[in-house]
Amino acid sequence: MAGAFERKRHEGDDRDRLTCRDCGFVAYENPKVVVGSVVSIPEAGPGGVLLCRRAIEPRRGFWTLPAGYLEMNETVEEGARREAWEEACARIATDGVLAVFSIARLGQVQVMFRARLAVPGYAPGPESLEVRAFAWDEIPWAEIAFPSVHWALQAWKEGAGHPGPAMLNPPEDPRGMRPLAGPALAGDAG
Amino acid sequence: MAGAFERKRHEGDDRDRLTCRDCGFVAYENPKVVVGSVVSIPEAGPGGVLLCRRAIEPRRGFWTLPAGYLEMNETVEEGARREAWEEACARIATDGVLAVFSIARLGQVQVMFRARLAVPGYAPGPESLEVRAFAWDEIPWAEIAFPSVHWALQAWKEGAGHPGPAMLNPPEDPRGMRPLAGPALAGDAG
Repeated sequence: MAGAFERKRHEGDDRDRLTCRDCGFVAYENPKVVVGSVVSIPEAGPGGVLLCRRAIEPRRGFWTLPAGYLEMNETVEEGARREAWEEACARIATDGVLAVFSIARLGQVQVMFRARLAVPGYAPGPESLEVRAFAWDEIPWAEIAFPSVHWALQAWKEGAGHPGPAMLNPPEDPRGMRPLAGPALAGDAG
Repeated sequence: MAGAFERKRHEGDDRDRLTCRDCGFVAYENPKVVVGSVVSIPEAGPGGVLLCRRAIEPRRGFWTLPAGYLEMNETVEEGARREAWEEACARIATDGVLAVFSIARLGQVQVMFRARLAVPGYAPGPESLEVRAFAWDEIPWAEIAFPSVHWALQAWKEGAGHPGPAMLNPPEDPRGMRPLAGPALAGDAG
């Protein structure tokens, strides 16, 4: 639908911008903010956390954290709470920023929170096939949807009991440039 | 220039989107990411920090931190370093996330870093009238450009020497809804 747009350098700017050939409207492409949370579920066992199995592409069938794009006029905490509600039917309370990740490859900034259930209970929302609490040792590491889910879970585990400053990207991928690794799911069990 | 756009509800969506009447292009309005830093300048005296006097609207003539919009395919740290270079001709090193502020009123998320000079020296860039290091007690509090500059400076001061977890909005404005307060500058000394 964006056929009328071209990339064009405007006066005083230092990079090309997506510009409508007809009316000159500049659709600035800005990095998008993803907000999400690692929700502690102690009842699931030591290091218990909430994960959602994706009902949508990309990475349908893989496990992720409740997270998604921040909307306009929403705070980062409100967004993280809304996403937990939409994806996991979970009412959460946030306990501070866990991590700020940059996925430069995708133009994303992810603000991840430490969280817990404010009201007991969770269930799959429309974008999840399944929502489950896993003890740390039960987490299906081979079926995690995105590198940043690994990063967030590790940051959460390392900070458990003594939350430190918000983490940034891990040293092995400081700019968020590594694409997804590993094969797709062999079969869809959903 | 966006005269051809209207706000329209699309199927499966829960809010109106800016949509081109002609071609149907949806210009999603996403919150924008601002990255910036509180740059410590110990030589300026106790609690010394770097401030820039704005050469552009809004709030021309008022003092702000080196900060600006994150660009695509840039990490938050890279963005903070670029902004310090563009606005204050300062080469900085970041020391972790100081704060994540939500300015819901403007659809902004601000990621602010603790920083210091990696290379001595600073000077006004094109968007600054003046760049100065102030000891804490010399900061021109009545001429600060934005509430979030106050917040960031206070967060930095409170965390000096013992950086804690990243701060979120202060209790008095948890959603970033308060507009600028106070009169404009009486005169432009620049």
